Order: sequence, then structure tokens, then C-alpha cells
Amino acid sequence: MLKTKVGRRHLIDTDELTVEEMETLFGRAAYWRDHPEAWFQTGKGRFVANWFLEPSTRTRVSFEVAEKRLGMETIDLDGETSSTVKGESFYDTLRTLSAIGAEVVVVRHAGVGTLAEMAWENPGVSLVNAGEGNGGHPTQALLDLFTMQEHFRELKGLTVAIIGDIRHSRVARSNYWALKAFGARIILAGPESMRNPSLEENAPYLPVDEAIQQADVVMMLRVQLERHRETLFSSPDVYRHAYGLTPERLEAMQPHAVMMHPAPVNRGVEIADELVEHPRSKIFEQMANGVWIRMAVLERAIEGGRWR
Amino acid sequence: MLKTKVGRRHLIDTDELTVEEMETLFGRAAYWRDHPEAWFQTGKGRFVANWFLEPSTRTRVSFEVAEKRLGMETIDLDGETSSTVKGESFYDTLRTLSAIGAEVVVVRHAGVGTLAEMAWENPGVSLVNAGEGNGGHPTQALLDLFTMQEHFRELKGLTVAIIGDIRHSRVARSNYWALKAFGARIILAGPESMRNPSLEENAPYLPVDEAIQQADVVMMLRVQLERHRETLFSSPDVYRHAYGLTPERLEAMQPHAVMMHPAPVNRGVEIADELVEHPRSKIFEQMANGVWIRMAVLERAIEGGRWR
Amino acid sequence: MLKTKVGRRHLIDTDELTVEEMETLFGRAAYWRDHPEAWFQTGKGRFVANWFLEPSTRTRVSFEVAEKRLGMETIDLDGETSSTVKGESFYDTLRTLSAIGAEVVVVRHAGVGTLAEMAWENPGVSLVNAGEGNGGHPTQALLDLFTMQEHFRELKGLTVAIIGDIRHSRVARSNYWALKAFGARIILAGPESMRNPSLEENAPYLPVDEAIQQADVVMMLRVQLERHRETLFSSPDVYRHAYGLTPERLEAMQPHAVMMHPAPVNRGVEIADELVEHPRSKIFEQMANGVWIRMAVLERAIEGGRWR
Repeated sequence: MLKTKVGRRHLIDTDELTVEEMETLFGRAAYWRDHPEAWFQTGKGRFVANWFLEPSTRTRVSFEVAEKRLGMETIDLDGETSSTVKGESFYDTLRTLSAIGAEVVVVRHAGVGTLAEMAWENPGVSLVNAGEGNGGHPTQALLDLFTMQEHFRELKGLTVAIIGDIRHSRVARSNYWALKAFGARIILAGPESMRNPSLEENAPYLPVDEAIQQADVVMMLRVQLERHRETLFSSPDVYRHAYGLTPERLEAMQPHAVMMHPAPVNRGVEIADELVEHPRSKIFEQMANGVWIRMAVLERAIEGGRWR
Repeated sequence: MLKTKVGRRHLIDTDELTVEEMETLFGRAAYWRDHPEAWFQTGKGRFVANWFLEPSTRTRVSFEVAEKRLGMETIDLDGETSSTVKGESFYDTLRTLSAIGAEVVVVRHAGVGTLAEMAWENPGVSLVNAGEGNGGHPTQALLDLFTMQEHFRELKGLTVAIIGDIRHSRVARSNYWALKAFGARIILAGPESMRNPSLEENAPYLPVDEAIQQADVVMMLRVQLERHRETLFSSPDVYRHAYGLTPERLEAMQPHAVMMHPAPVNRGVEIADELVEHPRSKIFEQMANGVWIRMAVLERAIEGGRWR
Repeated sequence: MLKTKVGRRHLIDTDELTVEEMETLFGRAAYWRDHPEAWFQTGKGRFVANWFLEPSTRTRVSFEVAEKRLGMETIDLDGETSSTVKGESFYDTLRTLSAIGAEVVVVRHAGVGTLAEMAWENPGVSLVNAGEGNGGHPTQALLDLFTMQEHFRELKGLTVAIIGDIRHSRVARSNYWALKAFGARIILAGPESMRNPSLEENAPYLPVDEAIQQADVVMMLRVQLERHRETLFSSPDVYRHAYGLTPERLEAMQPHAVMMHPAPVNRGVEIADELVEHPRSKIFEQMANGVWIRMAVLERAIEGGRWR
């Protein structure tokens, strides 16, 4: 009587989702986008906790808008005031949130593998991965695929070039698994030092210009400036000319191809400043779609699939 | 279909408002104060983001109460967790907030002129200035004028003495423009080193005691203790005796005159401790009025003037 | 007309509550637990401010869930962005919150005695103590007693052993006053250096093993690791063997006795890791009960006893 009985539907990474499950999420995302009259009801009176141990305006706010549009009550555990400072364990915090009444916990943190481990421990809440170290970022991949599907209707057979810091990108990894599942063709490109051999078994590594010419979707990754500025390239200009999307490279794209980026963009580094809002850029459409995808993911987390 | 169509009604500073527009805002503020039964409806389901890059309990909380009393959904972007730490530009953050669904962004920051520039760039949200460096603080000026109008009925012809650190005060500046528009008479006073010559063309600079004796409204400004303690005066007592509102100066005010302060007060510096809650002090009434004024400003921001 | 007229019902510490008042709070806590259909109504449209000047995930989130389950509008004043950085006084912040429309302020801070002083100053809001330095933590004590009463039906005559850092524990103090009022028998135990003579007049200080064998309730306190690690014991293991709840000590408890802890637990220090979720542990039940107790306390704060 105290607790609503819910199925625990975690979302740890895209590799645990079937194509059918992802299709269902895309369908629900479109539903939420198209039916504002249905907002603010499904999650009424149900609590979700947002636990962002790493800074992230975009993803945190996107989740919060999604939660509130579902009518959920939100609780913030920011890094500063969380009792992690008292050494409390990850598990105990989740069990505490469950005891207090939260049904879902959205987590961003620097570790890798902790969320999968936690899901296994059965902490009494549905876990949603909002970006885990260099591991995965499944809602980003889902919103990327949703954006592609809305544009091209069909993901199967699409050629997607992922360009940039493949090695450190959780976005690359989560997109890789999801795109593979749908039968898309993936091409990788970027600096030699940022390659990820484990992804190259089923995805060719090509020179940037070749990748861009072949792609239906050019997905530029964010350069972790704070990490690479000194060691890997001498200036933003040098990176942009070697690996970034310049007006010349945009011209070389297939006429029907589009450009994407997980944002926030380093303007003038991985993408020339003037291309961010170019008609062929999907960047702000991706952001808008993020809210619908997260509504679908949260709905799944609290309902255990009520729409089945 | 995705986005409610709204007029973009920024509020950057008081010098862009006509007397008529300010009168309308005062009317709506009084309406919100007098009609609690109308609260929690107008902004239902609409998102406002609060982006305070400088600390401000009072203003932030006042805005938040106003937003919630309008029924709006609020999103907080605090300085710490915002992705400004990743170097994302002001503009991109606003565009992101717009893409995610925010219709209004309330901003406090240290820069000057950025908000006007942003409004020009058309970022897809209504901007509300909650205090911009040494620039402007329009909702503070509006609540000050609203408080004066409620007390004196008429702003035209009123003599307002603004006393203290004129040079660094955004409150002084925003009040100056608004009071001038209404035909009030402004007197300035304060330490020689804190004068602002650009405001003195239409406002005489007088000795403190003279200013206080002539005024209908004595508006004491906050001393930026953190900035001036060492350089400009040797102790709070020295400042208070020279430029602060002491019991003796209160006695010297006209019998009908009132005292105001934008708060937070440095008790014992610009105002003697025991005068803060004096019957002639409007300080806490100003705070209460701040909520009504901000409700009016936010209503204007989302409706583009639905009450016209 | 502007402000709802409310009785000011502070909760500063348990020693100001009668047994009858605590019984009423327990009754209301059970009511809120058992009647989810009554949630989200009582506090609708009424504002509570949470002012946590010390980190506390658990207590802050528990209050926030309680507030939202009552339907209240919540305002956060976190330490970082509060204008305490501008030197504003405690009193002025409370008066500001009152002027802005808050009816209740939930405070956690490091000082002792400030809240009682503030209540005396009549700041225009109901104060609820969420943990005050080494002083009191009344909602923790109330949820502890509620948990005991739910389990044993009767508090009178119960033997409660409080074990650990008695000297620095506000939990120990607040429990002491409340348990005494109900006629429970209190036993104290723990390191010699952590004794509190002022509590020992009416509560014997016993060796840990003896205390555990006599108790109906074994209440283990949290070790302030950050404070004592260096000075008072050489390692967590040493502390656990000397004063912690080990499997052997659990075996030595009376068959009907239960174990409690205010949390967060230092696993492996005051309690052996594997006992935290033992069937005889009440730890997560305490957390769940915290929400119901806080709903009762907040209801009292805004209604001044509407259920009388």
C-alpha cells in the first residue's frame, strides 16, 4: 500500500535494447511530441531523482523538462550537497532514495560499469543512465537515431560517419550499438590518436574527407578541449582544418546528407562557427527530440511498459 | 504544434519601457497581489529557466515564487553545474533552452550589455534581466516605483534622493531612467569617489543631509562592502556617520517621507540597525512587492501582452 | 488578504513537545502513510523554503518529498548561492522569505541555539529544525520513536541502548528527551572519550556488550569519521570490534530486539556491512517513516493544528 508496485525498467545502455524496444521508444517519443494535451498526467505524484555528479546543463535540463512534462515530481541531488561527501556508498544512496519514495533515479557520473552493477543489486529504483564516464550515453544515442529516422524514415542501410574523438566518446559507443542493431553502416574517422580499435571490427576507419563524402549522416563528436588542448593538436584551427566540418567539407557532403552533433559544440573547433545553425544542421532538432525521447524512457521506467 | 507561439517580450532595462507600459505592469502587479484566487493558472505547463551566474538569494527566490504563483514550471541553471564550465557560449545556452522548451530565461550575470546583444540575436526565448553587472536591474526599479506609487499615488513631482554608491549601482541606474520617465525629481548624494557624472546632468548632487531633508523618498543604496572596505572608508561606523541613515537623519526627513533600500541591508553601515524595521521603512514591503512585479513581468514575457 | 493567516508552529527540538503532541504527530504520520489518496492537497499553493547550510542528502530529500506530497511549493536556498556570502543576517533572510511568501523555513546549519533565538524574534515564518550543529535533530528523533512505536506498540518501559559518539550526536540528544518523556529506559554506551556526562544523570553508561544484551532497541550512532579518524581509534576495524554491531553482538541481542541507525551508515565501522539490511535492521524503515513524520511536522507548521 505504501509503495506503488512498479516494474523496474532500467536503461543502462543501448546494447541491452532490441530493435523492437527502440522502435517502441521512438513511437512514444513521437506521441509525446505530437500530443501536448497528454502532457502533465502520466507521471503525476511519482518521484524521480536526478543525480548528476558531473556538470551537464543540457542533459540535466532536458531530463528535467521531460520529467515535468510527464507530470512527475523531481528531486535534485547535486554533487555538492549530496552525502557522497560523507563517503556514503552509491548503493546506499539508491536504497535511500527508494525508501524515501523515488521510483526512478537518473544518474550521470564519471565511473564506468557502476550502473550495470547497481541494476544487478536491485536497489528498488529504475536506473536511467544520463552519461557514464567513457562508457555509455543511451538517451543521446536514442535521440540521435530518432532524429535520423524522422528525417530518413528508415535507419537500415543508412551510412553514418562518426568523426572525432572516438576513443573517449560514450556517445560514439552508444550510437554504435544502436545503429548496428538497426543495420546501419558505420564509418569512423578522426585523429589517429583518438581511434578505438574495438569499434573498428565492424566499422571501417577512413580519412575524414572520404568519410564525409560517403555519409548520409555526418556525426561530429565534441573535442574534449580540457583534455586534449595541449597534447594532441596545437590550436582549434589546426584541429578544424584537419578533422572539423568546414564549409568546404559541407559542400562535399552528398546533397541529401545531414550533419549532427551531440552538443555542446566547440564552435570553430569540430564545426565551423557559421555551420552550427546551417539548414543542414540537425543540432537544435536533436535537442528538441531529446525531451521526447526522455519522456519515452521515463515512461518506460515508471510503467514497465504500460503502452504495450 | 511543438511550440506555443509567443511574442518575445524581453525586459532588459527600464529605459526601453514607456510610462504606459510601466503603468500597465503596476496595474498587473496590484492585480496579482489582490487576486490570490487567480494564482497558479496563467503560466501552467510553461517553462521558465532561472540562470543566476552571480549569487542572489533574494532576487532568485522572489522570481521563483513569482513563477510558481503563475503556475509555471521552473528550471534552475546554477553557475556550478551549468556547462559554461565547458566554454559553451551564452547564445548557445539560450538556444538550447529554447529547443528544450523554455519560453523565458531569467538571467543574472556579471557582464554588461550581453543581454541586450542576446535579445538582438533572437535566441527564441524571452529574456528577463535579473541584475546585470553594473548595468541595470529593471525589476528592482519597477518594484521600487510600484512601492512609491502605492504610497504616494502619484510619481510625477515626487522628490527621490538616491544615496550611496551611485557609481557601481545598477539599482540607481534603472531607477533613474524609470523615475525620469514619470517626471519625478531625482537628487543624488554619497561619497565623492562613488559619484556617477553621467547621471548628474539631470539630477543634482547634494550633501547627504540636504538630500535627506528635501526628499519624499530616501533611497539608501547598499555599500559593496566586499569591494570598498579597505579603500574608501576606514570602518562601517565612519561610513554610517558620513553617509548612512542614522536616527538623527531620520528625524530630519520630512514628516511624510519614507525610506527605501534594495536589500540586502548592511545593518549599521548604510542604515542604522534599529531603523531597518522602522514604521517609515518600506524595505520589507519592497520585497513583498517584488513578487507581484515579477509576476507581471513574467506574464508579459509569456503572453506578449495578453492583458491588453 | 495578501498572506494566509497561519499559526506559527515552530519545531526546534523534542524537549518542547508534550507526549500528547508527539502522539498526535505519530497519528498523523500513520495517516499520511496509509492514505495516499489524501496526498498533494493539504499544502497546495503554500510555500516552504529549504535552507540547508550543511550537506545532507537524506534529510533534505526526505523533507522535499514530504513537502511535495503535501502539495507544497518548495524553494531551495542552498549554501553556495545564498546571500549569506554577502553577510546578510540569519534574521533578515527569514524576514525576507516571509515577505516573499514562504510560510515555513526548514533549516539545517552548524550553529547551536540560533533557531530557538530566531523563533523568539518572531520572523514571520514557522521554523523547522532539520539538524542544528551538535544541538538537536527533532524530526530524526520523532521518526525513530514512530518506528519503535510501530514495532513495539508501546514506548513506555522500552529499553533503548544508544551506542557510539554520544558526545557529538544531536540525534542522541533529541532521542533522549523524547524517550524520557514517554517513560522509556535509556542506556548509553561507547568510547570513553565520546561520553556526555549531562545525559548520564538519568541514563546509565554501560559497557557495549552489556548494553546490547539489555536493549529492546539497539540504536547505533554514526561515527563522524571526518572528525575522529586520526585521534580516537586507529582504524574502522578497531572501532567496529570495540563498539560496533558485529554478527556476534547481533546474536547476543534479545530475540525480540531490533537494530536502528540514523544513517548514513559507515558500513564496516559502527555496523558490520552484512547487517545493514539484516531482517532485524530497521534502517530503511526509518528512512521511509521519515517522510511520514515530516509530512506531519509540516502540516503542523502550516496549519497550526488543523487536525485538532
